[in-house]
Amino acid sequence: MTPSYLLDRLVELALSEDLAGGDLTTEATVAIEDRAIARATAHSPLVVCGGDVFARVFYRVDPGVRVERVLDDGALAKPGDVLWIAEGATRSLLMAERTALNFTQRMSGTATLTRRFVDALPAGTITRIVDTRKTTPGLRFLERYAVRTGGGHNHRDNLGSAVLIKDNHIVAAGGVKMAIERAFKHAPHSTRIEIEVESLAMLDEALEAGADVVILDNFAQSEIAVAVERAHGRALIEVSGGITLERIGALAQAGVDIVSVGALTHSAPAADIGLDIEKL
Amino acid sequence: MTPSYLLDRLVELALSEDLAGGDLTTEATVAIEDRAIARATAHSPLVVCGGDVFARVFYRVDPGVRVERVLDDGALAKPGDVLWIAEGATRSLLMAERTALNFTQRMSGTATLTRRFVDALPAGTITRIVDTRKTTPGLRFLERYAVRTGGGHNHRDNLGSAVLIKDNHIVAAGGVKMAIERAFKHAPHSTRIEIEVESLAMLDEALEAGADVVILDNFAQSEIAVAVERAHGRALIEVSGGITLERIGALAQAGVDIVSVGALTHSAPAADIGLDIEKL
Amino acid sequence: MTPSYLLDRLVELALSEDLAGGDLTTEATVAIEDRAIARATAHSPLVVCGGDVFARVFYRVDPGVRVERVLDDGALAKPGDVLWIAEGATRSLLMAERTALNFTQRMSGTATLTRRFVDALPAGTITRIVDTRKTTPGLRFLERYAVRTGGGHNHRDNLGSAVLIKDNHIVAAGGVKMAIERAFKHAPHSTRIEIEVESLAMLDEALEAGADVVILDNFAQSEIAVAVERAHGRALIEVSGGITLERIGALAQAGVDIVSVGALTHSAPAADIGLDIEKL
Amino acid sequence: MTPSYLLDRLVELALSEDLAGGDLTTEATVAIEDRAIARATAHSPLVVCGGDVFARVFYRVDPGVRVERVLDDGALAKPGDVLWIAEGATRSLLMAERTALNFTQRMSGTATLTRRFVDALPAGTITRIVDTRKTTPGLRFLERYAVRTGGGHNHRDNLGSAVLIKDNHIVAAGGVKMAIERAFKHAPHSTRIEIEVESLAMLDEALEAGADVVILDNFAQSEIAVAVERAHGRALIEVSGGITLERIGALAQAGVDIVSVGALTHSAPAADIGLDIEKL
Amino acid sequence: MTPSYLLDRLVELALSEDLAGGDLTTEATVAIEDRAIARATAHSPLVVCGGDVFARVFYRVDPGVRVERVLDDGALAKPGDVLWIAEGATRSLLMAERTALNFTQRMSGTATLTRRFVDALPAGTITRIVDTRKTTPGLRFLERYAVRTGGGHNHRDNLGSAVLIKDNHIVAAGGVKMAIERAFKHAPHSTRIEIEVESLAMLDEALEAGADVVILDNFAQSEIAVAVERAHGRALIEVSGGITLERIGALAQAGVDIVSVGALTHSAPAADIGLDIEKL
Amino acid sequence: MTPSYLLDRLVELALSEDLAGGDLTTEATVAIEDRAIARATAHSPLVVCGGDVFARVFYRVDPGVRVERVLDDGALAKPGDVLWIAEGATRSLLMAERTALNFTQRMSGTATLTRRFVDALPAGTITRIVDTRKTTPGLRFLERYAVRTGGGHNHRDNLGSAVLIKDNHIVAAGGVKMAIERAFKHAPHSTRIEIEVESLAMLDEALEAGADVVILDNFAQSEIAVAVERAHGRALIEVSGGITLERIGALAQAGVDIVSVGALTHSAPAADIGLDIEKL
Repeated sequence: MTPSYLLDRLVELALSEDLAGGDLTTEATVAIEDRAIARATAHSPLVVCGGDVFARVFYRVDPGVRVERVLDDGALAKPGDVLWIAEGATRSLLMAERTALNFTQRMSGTATLTRRFVDALPAGTITRIVDTRKTTPGLRFLERYAVRTGGGHNHRDNLGSAVLIKDNHIVAAGGVKMAIERAFKHAPHSTRIEIEVESLAMLDEALEAGADVVILDNFAQSEIAVAVERAHGRALIEVSGGITLERIGALAQAGVDIVSVGALTHSAPAADIGLDIEKL
Repeated sequence: MTPSYLLDRLVELALSEDLAGGDLTTEATVAIEDRAIARATAHSPLVVCGGDVFARVFYRVDPGVRVERVLDDGALAKPGDVLWIAEGATRSLLMAERTALNFTQRMSGTATLTRRFVDALPAGTITRIVDTRKTTPGLRFLERYAVRTGGGHNHRDNLGSAVLIKDNHIVAAGGVKMAIERAFKHAPHSTRIEIEVESLAMLDEALEAGADVVILDNFAQSEIAVAVERAHGRALIEVSGGITLERIGALAQAGVDIVSVGALTHSAPAADIGLDIEKL
Repeated sequence: MTPSYLLDRLVELALSEDLAGGDLTTEATVAIEDRAIARATAHSPLVVCGGDVFARVFYRVDPGVRVERVLDDGALAKPGDVLWIAEGATRSLLMAERTALNFTQRMSGTATLTRRFVDALPAGTITRIVDTRKTTPGLRFLERYAVRTGGGHNHRDNLGSAVLIKDNHIVAAGGVKMAIERAFKHAPHSTRIEIEVESLAMLDEALEAGADVVILDNFAQSEIAVAVERAHGRALIEVSGGITLERIGALAQAGVDIVSVGALTHSAPAADIGLDIEKL
Repeated sequence: MTPSYLLDRLVELALSEDLAGGDLTTEATVAIEDRAIARATAHSPLVVCGGDVFARVFYRVDPGVRVERVLDDGALAKPGDVLWIAEGATRSLLMAERTALNFTQRMSGTATLTRRFVDALPAGTITRIVDTRKTTPGLRFLERYAVRTGGGHNHRDNLGSAVLIKDNHIVAAGGVKMAIERAFKHAPHSTRIEIEVESLAMLDEALEAGADVVILDNFAQSEIAVAVERAHGRALIEVSGGITLERIGALAQAGVDIVSVGALTHSAPAADIGLDIEKL
Repeated sequence: MTPSYLLDRLVELALSEDLAGGDLTTEATVAIEDRAIARATAHSPLVVCGGDVFARVFYRVDPGVRVERVLDDGALAKPGDVLWIAEGATRSLLMAERTALNFTQRMSGTATLTRRFVDALPAGTITRIVDTRKTTPGLRFLERYAVRTGGGHNHRDNLGSAVLIKDNHIVAAGGVKMAIERAFKHAPHSTRIEIEVESLAMLDEALEAGADVVILDNFAQSEIAVAVERAHGRALIEVSGGITLERIGALAQAGVDIVSVGALTHSAPAADIGLDIEKL
Repeated sequence: MTPSYLLDRLVELALSEDLAGGDLTTEATVAIEDRAIARATAHSPLVVCGGDVFARVFYRVDPGVRVERVLDDGALAKPGDVLWIAEGATRSLLMAERTALNFTQRMSGTATLTRRFVDALPAGTITRIVDTRKTTPGLRFLERYAVRTGGGHNHRDNLGSAVLIKDNHIVAAGGVKMAIERAFKHAPHSTRIEIEVESLAMLDEALEAGADVVILDNFAQSEIAVAVERAHGRALIEVSGGITLERIGALAQAGVDIVSVGALTHSAPAADIGLDIEKL
């Protein structure tokens, strides 16, 4: 359940892009009393995501449209499966169609790509696939939800919700130890202290200073195994940057706790969903 | 030049996702008086796009940050090329970094993909590569700009700016002829009347009724050539749906006027741009 | 049917001007449990316009108010006719009254004035009465609807929905031919190319360059007839500027396709509508 | 001086109506480096109003445009007089032109009409011309300013800023006396208590109950004189409803304190202002 | 009854602070189908205030939550009394809880403090306890309502709703008499003219110039009595600044008309209200 | 440095409450060309907080006002100390005054109260004073900043930034162990897992399940010492609820890591700051 007020803001923004000047074609060709049924249908295999948004787009265009969810978010749909059904004034269905699909194709695209990464994990591993802050401006909330829907986990939501020390912070603070100490001193006690390191020496320094999570930046696969071992019981190990489906198995077998994948949100291709409208 | 007020709305929306609660890490580790220079650098070949937005993000976080554009929008950058430079308080640079990149990686991604389609056109053809309404909710304005930056053209902006009659409109109006007549009667005289057809018979009907542009839906390549010939001097021919880079050459040689490609905006991978921050 | 979300934005803006500090008088004098019926009544002959907005204003003040539309938008009302009826808490009716009337008096005023222009067209002519972009800031969507309600047509919605080349564009582009060529090259294929000319020589140049619509700026009535003849079958002719009711007949008989009238939206007097409230 | 933040909200709303999709024509025909000077010029006699808004529209489109105010708000302009001058990128001038004029033609229209009413007052009278709450949704702030600019006065700003008891309030409260007593008891001490009456008997009742201002609703001119006499030294007398320029002299000579005129804001024709753009 | 649209703006602002990133804990621990009942309970004696807001917060998170008001606004609650009950999805109740309480604890806190001041007035006095413009940014509407709920009255709502001349205005205008004259000349006739004075001499000057209300700034209690006598029948007397509960009795007995207390809104401690959630 | 865009949203909201209808008094009495200097002065001992907001309020009313910060945020001011100075048009200073003070009195009030709690900690203790989510709707960002300014720390920002398991979550999840396990499984790895317990037995269960932070709810002081000992090296101990200044010393000496105090934000009295305006 997504809070209504959050969806409304996004839905109104999107509708205003497409409908601020009405719908010339629909007003010219469709009678105001015509009614129809619209079925959102998968055209390729996908993980369903976005039922709440789908329903809300139609609601905001016309509260009289009724929406039914045939498949729940997270379900696997094969080509031809109906995901959601909307029924009401034909004009309203046609005016809301594109906006509803623009949201849900994107969300299902991210959920589907996430599932592919999660499915690439060997059985029995503890490794998490997580997202990053590389989200589409304005859609972070929905994209993080899509990652969870696909079986992934979320990283920190924003710059204010957790500490993640990167190279520039280390330089500014005067070293790994200083940076971690300052973070412990200033940050809320509710956040773990995470730091990105570029070598095993920096990893040691970070562990020594009490880091809770350490990101390995551009480590060779062999170094990653060493790092996991050294951190065992002291900190979680995250790998980030240049992650492909092919590397997931090896990373998991090396015992990495977290693999963060920017592509889940910045480069997932839209899922192929169509809307078939039938006159009533 | 993009009107300032338009950028501000988008930029504030994006910043509020990342910075509503401040930046824990930066506030803990970076002194308030530290200054730095940040260079946005291409990590892969790309078409530059988003200089205005890049500058505005830093400006809205801190009006004291100075931004220089090294490469203009539309330029081809190779790996290592510096696109834009920001200089100011280190804290401000770090707080704005992710938002600035989230915008520009996406815009440059769309511009770069568009350029690949445009470059696939044989020399001397008149064919246009155009976008669709399959844009990211909230970012339509920027993505349409990115398509133009990559050498493409825009389709209609929204449902109120031009007429495009699709199958459901035809059914509702009672046929191709009726739909076109109604559109001519109701729509502003400033819009062309465009219609999507599924057969050569429907094409003939549309031409007869005076359609200005006809979209061929799922026509075989051989039929496309026939359609172009029949429409010659009477209407423009647009091809849409399932367009890949490989098909562009043949479509252009068949004399198609317009090829619309949804993937330009719904599935372009983000361009790889990094921000290198150097302490001053 | 106007999308709910569009009305809400306008309605909330207007309500916030009148009710941000409550309603001192009503709270002092009317008991919270009082109920009443309010009838919006025409005090002069008018074309009804604004039923959706009327209902939404009451809804946003108090979802418990029930609104009935006695006359549809576009109907002709004579003095004394009831247009719409609202029933609910007396306090809510009194708080929403002025805002509901401010919207609908203005919309009905524009619809009524438009109808007068449309009624001035001789029977059998093809001439359209169209609006301009000279609308009230913030109310363009509603005023364009009011023009259609009065039997008029809309011109382009905004600067991004169609091309209209004026004198400054011609000068900047280096002449009529160059301006039209550039427009064809850059603009979406969905828009017609319209240009404003000041002489028959410029008209010829525009027709030669393939303009779809030509606006005659300050042409004598005799020249207008010549222009219509020359453009016949090649372009539509629009007349604009200084249009009065008295000129409509002659312009239509000269065969002009489009007459655009700024006064429809910038100077229409408000229609006289009152709200009679009866205690239940 | 109008607070910047207030203008921005209105200006952005208006710009978004016209420029959300860019300016097709200007982008096609005007080079990005072209510069020009634009002179806003009166085409009919008018009271100048809206210099702040004029400047802010250009500023929000492009902070690089420089605006000079040749005539102050409130000045009388004759045809040909230049009111304001904007200088900057030609593209920016053309993109902002219509919005800037839509605001200022309306504001100057209201100021000009107000001045006509004020000028109709005989010399030496104390009568005020005031506006009403019959303003354009969204523009109340600007229209009230325009009334003052034309020499008029404002009535209460909104339902929360002062008490005005009308017929429905009287009925709900159980009579004139009860309504006034309740208002005194509940309303802030900073507001006067104003009441609308339909007969001399009601006037007496209102004066008895201590009303500060009494509005005479549809009184004959002869009754108005009687009412003024009875109220002398006890309450102010306001006349409202069906006020024309012709009646102003008589009302003033009868000693009426306030004449409220809805037409100032709901039916003022737009002032005729043009923008002449000259290439630099 | 508070207009829905006003509550929504405030409620959405508050929800976005707490829920923009979802609710990690609730999503992890509470099943989506769990339902519960939540009882808002007084933990200390208080004046109930905020039922409308309480209901609206739950509604905006989840329209499926049903809210019942056990005690009306203005009622006195003793520890253990249930004020309001919400029933619905447990997740929704937990997500809305803090925001609903943040509003109502503050509103009830102001109502409770106001009641203490009102209860300190001796029986039979005419003195009003009123608020000031020292309200919480963004919450003025709700806090003024809370003051009325506690038995107090409101002062002017904002700078545009009434005249209040302070020391700087007097200096700028060139004296008490000039300031009052200018105010009478410029301000709407619907507002009283109020002025703040620092001595009995200034009071005399203000009364002479026709001030409707006079504020005594830092007068000794003995001077206050003199001032009340001099102003009797000519102007209302308000006392402001440094008002404590202990002084109320003496001020009322001196015949002061109005006592304005900034602390009602700027320093009222939050009322102690808890939400007990019981699984269904 | 607070991002400009964040301040603007809050500042505009507050200004719109006070200035939407202009400033009647100032416009009537102060000449448009008058200039003045305004000094914000402490009237009681306080911790300075809000310089950025103070400056931004004046800037948004009038960009021509110049603001100087005499004392930095966090400084201790004694009565008579000047905090900030604004210089510019007298009208602008008077229009912005109340809004600027409403923000800064509240922020300085919270900073001052926080400092009192921090100063109550015995020298050498590690105990933190932290805030809660009991903040003023709309002002959370500023109030959390004020807590830090007073020497306190922040708790989690919102429901999406960290996990905090309370009684209802425990019941819903089926016990302490289950709730903690689910939280570890679902929540981002960047957050610590915090849980509230009501007995030493529950504490043991929480420690066993790996909780990072444990809140003791209504523990006797003697039990607190036991809890600290048991948790030593395994989890942080937080005490919450009914915290007064008097208890701080004992809690710190017992070795509690965190003391959270809702009153810092929900019941801090406004700091006494005045604005002295001197004509130039």
